[in-house]
Amino acid sequence: MAATASTTPSSFIFRKTPKNQSFLKPESISVALTANRLAKPISLSCSATAASATQIQDRPPIQNQSQDRVFNFAAGPATLPENVLLKAQSELYNWRGSGMSVMEMSHRGKEFTSIIQKAEADLRALLKIPEDYAVLFLQGGATSQFAAIPLNLCQADDTVDCLVTGSWGDKAFKEAQKYCKPKVIWSGKSEKYVRIPAFDGLEQSPDAKYLHICANETIHGVEFKDYPVPKNGLLIADMSSNFCSKPVDVSKFGLIYAGAQKNVGPSGVTIVIVRKDVIGNARDITPVMFDYKIHAENNSLYNTPPCYGIYVCGLVFEDLLAQGGLEEVEKRNKKKAELLYNAIDESKGFYRCPVEKSVRSLMNVPFTLEKSELEAEFIKEAAKEKMVQLKGHRSVGGMRASIYNAMPLAGVEKLVAFMKDFQARHA
Amino acid sequence: MAATASTTPSSFIFRKTPKNQSFLKPESISVALTANRLAKPISLSCSATAASATQIQDRPPIQNQSQDRVFNFAAGPATLPENVLLKAQSELYNWRGSGMSVMEMSHRGKEFTSIIQKAEADLRALLKIPEDYAVLFLQGGATSQFAAIPLNLCQADDTVDCLVTGSWGDKAFKEAQKYCKPKVIWSGKSEKYVRIPAFDGLEQSPDAKYLHICANETIHGVEFKDYPVPKNGLLIADMSSNFCSKPVDVSKFGLIYAGAQKNVGPSGVTIVIVRKDVIGNARDITPVMFDYKIHAENNSLYNTPPCYGIYVCGLVFEDLLAQGGLEEVEKRNKKKAELLYNAIDESKGFYRCPVEKSVRSLMNVPFTLEKSELEAEFIKEAAKEKMVQLKGHRSVGGMRASIYNAMPLAGVEKLVAFMKDFQARHA
Repeated sequence: MAATASTTPSSFIFRKTPKNQSFLKPESISVALTANRLAKPISLSCSATAASATQIQDRPPIQNQSQDRVFNFAAGPATLPENVLLKAQSELYNWRGSGMSVMEMSHRGKEFTSIIQKAEADLRALLKIPEDYAVLFLQGGATSQFAAIPLNLCQADDTVDCLVTGSWGDKAFKEAQKYCKPKVIWSGKSEKYVRIPAFDGLEQSPDAKYLHICANETIHGVEFKDYPVPKNGLLIADMSSNFCSKPVDVSKFGLIYAGAQKNVGPSGVTIVIVRKDVIGNARDITPVMFDYKIHAENNSLYNTPPCYGIYVCGLVFEDLLAQGGLEEVEKRNKKKAELLYNAIDESKGFYRCPVEKSVRSLMNVPFTLEKSELEAEFIKEAAKEKMVQLKGHRSVGGMRASIYNAMPLAGVEKLVAFMKDFQARHA
Repeated sequence: MAATASTTPSSFIFRKTPKNQSFLKPESISVALTANRLAKPISLSCSATAASATQIQDRPPIQNQSQDRVFNFAAGPATLPENVLLKAQSELYNWRGSGMSVMEMSHRGKEFTSIIQKAEADLRALLKIPEDYAVLFLQGGATSQFAAIPLNLCQADDTVDCLVTGSWGDKAFKEAQKYCKPKVIWSGKSEKYVRIPAFDGLEQSPDAKYLHICANETIHGVEFKDYPVPKNGLLIADMSSNFCSKPVDVSKFGLIYAGAQKNVGPSGVTIVIVRKDVIGNARDITPVMFDYKIHAENNSLYNTPPCYGIYVCGLVFEDLLAQGGLEEVEKRNKKKAELLYNAIDESKGFYRCPVEKSVRSLMNVPFTLEKSELEAEFIKEAAKEKMVQLKGHRSVGGMRASIYNAMPLAGVEKLVAFMKDFQARHA
């Protein structure tokens, strides 16, 4: 049976079989039908035969989503594509007719197997990952990889070179000191991390097992635009904060690693792309959970992986492919970054970005106000305008706008307009 | 403006402001209003002014949830409370008016801070955790703790005792061999792990740093009903598969750890409850991510935690408190387990559980069929009846029904009825 109710300009068709009427209970549901941030969700309230008290107790209070989304400039966890969120929401209770949530699925069942296999296949397609590289979905963040990399690739006496262009590269160096003999061949610390050196001037160790870089420094906003060639050994990059933001020639690297929570998913998933021939040499003190061989042999299913996070990453990969792949994604990211950096550079010093122009990050844009006493006011007023998380990292202060893949152009345009208005009012 | 449309027996009220009409687009939404598994969701379709092609591409195909939930007997990841799933679904797109998903929140922002603090407070209330214990929300599963525990508590020459009552206790012993001198003081392996020894007969090492047990063996279905007292050092328990399934006197333990994905949340979250006075002695080869001191000092926020998983765990803790706490939860678990074990024991040998009655798990019920050639058929027919994941672990075969907190009594009743019917047809 179907009853139809018409409203202008939307028409609703309501279908329900007699069978389930007696199970409906008074409740109010609100679903986001928003095509963009300006739209209000549609709110329905449905009353019918009440079920038992127990059943009513079991019902959650459905949250109202009437508030618009904010523009979230957080450095990570960070904004995700709105359509990915809506798809995840629509599938959360019952994934594609499986009768269960992805959160409830056995990691060895056919449903989750299809999810992780598609996620890997889509990531391989996005980054054109060669067959001789393994893709691992792990846990523990980049911080775990700071230990796992030397444990898998080095003996205690091995030398590795570190090019330190920000706080994260420095952390990777410090953790490696526990397991091998890392050497800082260049550090931007004395200059407060505002540039990347010329590669030909680097004094690499002849016997270094690998050269480690942080491809994009989330805190300092310094990003490699091309990559040094190791004199010896492998090039290894922490790509946590610019992973899948642009095309990358994976074949130049021995290992790429990234926490998911900037560009490709929620926190709790760490992706490692490693050349297969360097797997299998872990030291005997390596925890089994840090051993690439174990995870590669078991297709990331040696133990229970972060299933739901991998599922959301898969939705993001699918979305990036639908956008036209990383070439298109990079175009959008360049456009957004150009808009913001221009606003800073054209502010006659009212706003300042300390980073050398040639290596400014497309992802994280740190800037200060000439009148630093206005920074708190800037952040407060921006938040009132639904632009949040613009405060710079506590270690450097100032402001930072993280504009990852999922930050819409409209978000950057709104920020730039706000910056100009703020300047006009406070110059 | 409000347009009202009445249908029988449900009435819908549809509110929408003129402002947002132009942003609505053709789409179909389906929302689970199910009070129980028999109810069908209500399906709405809404057509309105189409937005731009880009926006339409950005829209996800909303999945239809018309299929009922299955009864999922998986050992983990496992079934979650239906009302927790529905609440998570309702909040996924916009958490309580914050304008963002929990997946997008900075782990240092006020919103997530409130989430993790409430999760910890509710867990402390559930387990009555004393003040002198730290609660850590980590990553990497119990398998990471197999290494982290000796790295944090032992030097290389220290002895630790292991009571091995199943595969997981055996794995903990093997990993500890990398970092200290673990000794198996009792193993049930030769008997295929069907019992737990009398504690007074155990020959504990006088100088053992700790005594390790696996409180519930997920694969073999052996569960400690009380606990041995270490002659020296700490009692440490892997409670992954019976965490929060019953009250536990935390003060008897030096450390309790558990992967979340059985009773309290999705995979990707590992909870460690550790006595504060034993923190701070990690060996110099301990990865920073395995160092309890780092995580305790930073309230589990040293690096980005698995935020969304912690949020879902928090919803589960809230739900367990609402159910009356762990005393009530244990009553329900005992009733479910009794129903299932009785069906096995009263089957005149058609079904068999190998585990000694006094230590049978309330969470994982392994059983075999006398006519083992029927096992595949049993699993196939059960799946047709929407009872899934009943296959025993590949290492032991047979069947296993995991009946964690979130498995409704109705699920066990349905399984038992099916077992009796299956026996009647195949005896």
